[in-house]
Amino acid sequence: MQARVFVTLKPSVFDPQGTTVAEALHTLGYATVRDVRQGKYFELEIDATSADEARRLAAEAADRLLSNPVIESYRIEVTS
Amino acid sequence: MQARVFVTLKPSVFDPQGTTVAEALHTLGYATVRDVRQGKYFELEIDATSADEARRLAAEAADRLLSNPVIESYRIEVTS
Repeated sequence: MQARVFVTLKPSVFDPQGTTVAEALHTLGYATVRDVRQGKYFELEIDATSADEARRLAAEAADRLLSNPVIESYRIEVTS
Repeated sequence: MQARVFVTLKPSVFDPQGTTVAEALHTLGYATVRDVRQGKYFELEIDATSADEARRLAAEAADRLLSNPVIESYRIEVTS
């Protein structure tokens, strides 16, 4: 089973990497790009018997290792 | 409109960062995690009149700036 974990900075946290990407896109002529936020993306291949179990395990991994809960939030999607 | 761009290394490209995360998860006791691939994740806020336009623009940005087409592939999702 595959769990996808998206980790992004919380909205209140300044994202200099995203700002730099947005400025680079403006320089390239993409003026309609208003804002960019950059995050991390993980694809976990998990041996789990159910989607719920895979999601629970991915959430635990995200809490303990993949994200910093003080400044980051995460979202999980499970596909079989 | 929001376009989400997921950039991952192509399957044939070795992903040491993902391997390190997988090993760390094994050390933490998550033996059922078979494999991890790490990638980048971008949320673009785009002033576009249609989802198609936003997708086209995000794909162009991904081709020109956000990904390295030699070793990386990307996937785009558009939400209003």
